[in-house]
Amino acid sequence: MTEVRLASVADADAVARLLHDFNTEFDTESPGPTVLARRLRTLLAETTTFAVLGGDGPDGIALVSLRTNVWFGGPVALLDELYVAAGLRGRGIGGEMIRLVAEECAGRGVELLEVNVDEGDVDALRFYGRHDFELIQPETGERAFYLSRILGPRSADGR
Amino acid sequence: MTEVRLASVADADAVARLLHDFNTEFDTESPGPTVLARRLRTLLAETTTFAVLGGDGPDGIALVSLRTNVWFGGPVALLDELYVAAGLRGRGIGGEMIRLVAEECAGRGVELLEVNVDEGDVDALRFYGRHDFELIQPETGERAFYLSRILGPRSADGR
Repeated sequence: MTEVRLASVADADAVARLLHDFNTEFDTESPGPTVLARRLRTLLAETTTFAVLGGDGPDGIALVSLRTNVWFGGPVALLDELYVAAGLRGRGIGGEMIRLVAEECAGRGVELLEVNVDEGDVDALRFYGRHDFELIQPETGERAFYLSRILGPRSADGR
Repeated sequence: MTEVRLASVADADAVARLLHDFNTEFDTESPGPTVLARRLRTLLAETTTFAVLGGDGPDGIALVSLRTNVWFGGPVALLDELYVAAGLRGRGIGGEMIRLVAEECAGRGVELLEVNVDEGDVDALRFYGRHDFELIQPETGERAFYLSRILGPRSADGR
């Protein structure tokens, strides 16, 4: 049985390291573990962010943000990141982390848990399907895409 | 030139009516204008939600929620809803609302504005493309899906 637990502010460095490893492994830009740890010391002290750690290392991280939404009386949750260190996958750490994420969300009055998944990431789509996430949205009977626009100084059109 | 403006708490009833009309038009469940207006009187007074109204009726609504995110120094914004009353579309109200949404987000330090769009909603996908939203995510070079899971009393597996 994999040990999973809710992260505290004291875990900010471990959470930052795992998130940085995540982005490094997938060639995604990262502000680095120091900046991430500083932000996490603030975020993990607030009620709108929580993280779940998995394994002894710890070896896995799930990061969740909560926000208000007019359609629900309670908050809506987005699973921002889910990562298990290379070499430790396929042991159920991710599934145990999702279980605790869902339990923690329900305890905070969350009725809707969301995640965005790359179209080509077949393993992740299968994983979330096994853990009761719907790709076909119940209200529309179809899939939905995630679109994004960069604003401000990084905006492509200079605005 | 379409008049667009930021909604205040005093606009809660108008925002609620437009959101309710939105869901009614598209056969989606709504808690009704009274409940929505009550929630909006709270939400619009907070810094994590804002709404933009368009037209004289007003005839259009854009609803945006802001949340913290470990990858950014400032908040990340999600365009929760965008609606223009039937019969008043194609006049640029939506585009003007998006322009003010982006301006308002940038003023609040937002670098990333997100929206989820149904796969079959070709008009919406084209609209957001025209307004600088990316369907192909810059970091991965591919599309991303939005997945969701209902928790708590409404959960399919009874948890």
